[in-house]
Amino acid sequence: MAPIPDGFSYGQWSVVYNALSFGIAAMGSATIFFWLQLPNVSKSYRTALTITGIVTFIATYHYFRIFNSWVEAFNVTNSGGGDYTVKLTGAPFNDAYRYVDWLLTVPLLLVELILVMKLPAEQTTSMSWKLGFASALMVALGYPGEIQDDLTVRWVWWGLAMIPFCYVVYELVVGLNDATKRQASATVSSLISSARYLTVISWCTYPFVYIVKNIGLSGPTATMYEQVGYSVADVVAKAVFGVMIWAIASEKSKLEEQGSLMSS
Amino acid sequence: MAPIPDGFSYGQWSVVYNALSFGIAAMGSATIFFWLQLPNVSKSYRTALTITGIVTFIATYHYFRIFNSWVEAFNVTNSGGGDYTVKLTGAPFNDAYRYVDWLLTVPLLLVELILVMKLPAEQTTSMSWKLGFASALMVALGYPGEIQDDLTVRWVWWGLAMIPFCYVVYELVVGLNDATKRQASATVSSLISSARYLTVISWCTYPFVYIVKNIGLSGPTATMYEQVGYSVADVVAKAVFGVMIWAIASEKSKLEEQGSLMSS
Repeated sequence: MAPIPDGFSYGQWSVVYNALSFGIAAMGSATIFFWLQLPNVSKSYRTALTITGIVTFIATYHYFRIFNSWVEAFNVTNSGGGDYTVKLTGAPFNDAYRYVDWLLTVPLLLVELILVMKLPAEQTTSMSWKLGFASALMVALGYPGEIQDDLTVRWVWWGLAMIPFCYVVYELVVGLNDATKRQASATVSSLISSARYLTVISWCTYPFVYIVKNIGLSGPTATMYEQVGYSVADVVAKAVFGVMIWAIASEKSKLEEQGSLMSS
Repeated sequence: MAPIPDGFSYGQWSVVYNALSFGIAAMGSATIFFWLQLPNVSKSYRTALTITGIVTFIATYHYFRIFNSWVEAFNVTNSGGGDYTVKLTGAPFNDAYRYVDWLLTVPLLLVELILVMKLPAEQTTSMSWKLGFASALMVALGYPGEIQDDLTVRWVWWGLAMIPFCYVVYELVVGLNDATKRQASATVSSLISSARYLTVISWCTYPFVYIVKNIGLSGPTATMYEQVGYSVADVVAKAVFGVMIWAIASEKSKLEEQGSLMSS
């Protein structure tokens, strides 16, 4: 496990610093939004919305930890010259926080999508287990490669992690296609469709960020792209995706309320 | 009470560090999930669900403490070489947090299982006292052995703690068997059955982790297995088990609601 590289410019260091703080602000405020909306959706969607907030809550915790670890790893000072100097303190920057976060949140993300679709009980359980297990396996297979310096070994673990990755993406695009069409209204169908494609697109950024170090980039530049890339992908995959889950839950609650008013 | 051993590699130190942080994230988010779900279950299961969250809340507190104690016990630095060096600072790593945690949470865990079964009032009280007392005794008998270096003395306390341990496991498997069969529906019975077996399996990991030091392992490797083993066992026995308690409470609430609708 190689230590973090030396030689960051203040600009590079600062971009990562602010991307991590953006992560805290975005994830934390998304959490509060989801939980405050709980009474506004009907009972059957509250578990989905609770989990949506749990996902961004876990991410908030980890962004605080990553931010603090980033700050502790560097000593940034100005001795009166033209720019700040960034030096390593020798303290480790703990990259494993991201993987621990994904191990918990990625299966939960898929569960929130399945729950908001309100499939038959059996299908909900079986899909949750299948996608939850495959996505946890994907994260677990990614980590050994992430902490490797040997580029060949990195590619091997990347390839292995891509197997469950492709399975999950396939299930989202093809497997849930029928269920999406069977949703209560055209608005709901199109919202769920968007949520599924947002998942696929935001997920696809991760394997690209992962291979930043494999395509010739190294040192501070590679670390900068990696940290900023993962932070932006995380906010899209958790907070923005969560807003879509909320929109679906909200729309379906409204339709159900109208339905029960009409039948009474 | 022997001080924590010297000679950790960064990898070993880091695995424990991240397992403890995983404990904080998992226990903390589980707590919020259980408490946010309180309005979604019927009144008779709210005490069980409150206690489920209390258990993971107490664990969250202790994982924060254990994490901080772990960080303070070590000085991790890089002086420009290929890997971080891990040295003891001389500050103690307080292992008693786990035992204080178990003394509080293990009896509560059993009470939450008994409460969600909704046995007759008398049986609820007597079972809670019997299992609560036996499990507290089990934890109290385990601690004197945990802080011993003499392997024979460790085995003696381990053996003594196994007596109440076996009694609790016996009561869970056999004693609650009849009551499980008498539950309202097949789904509920099978959920309670799963919760009972999850308890037994996750509990059985503890005596194994305990004897890691008795089977020839020592030094940093033994400490690493012990800390990671206890952390994973705790998350399964408290957070995952809690999700099953919630699922039972949720399913039974739904059935009771349907029942009262039909009879009205």
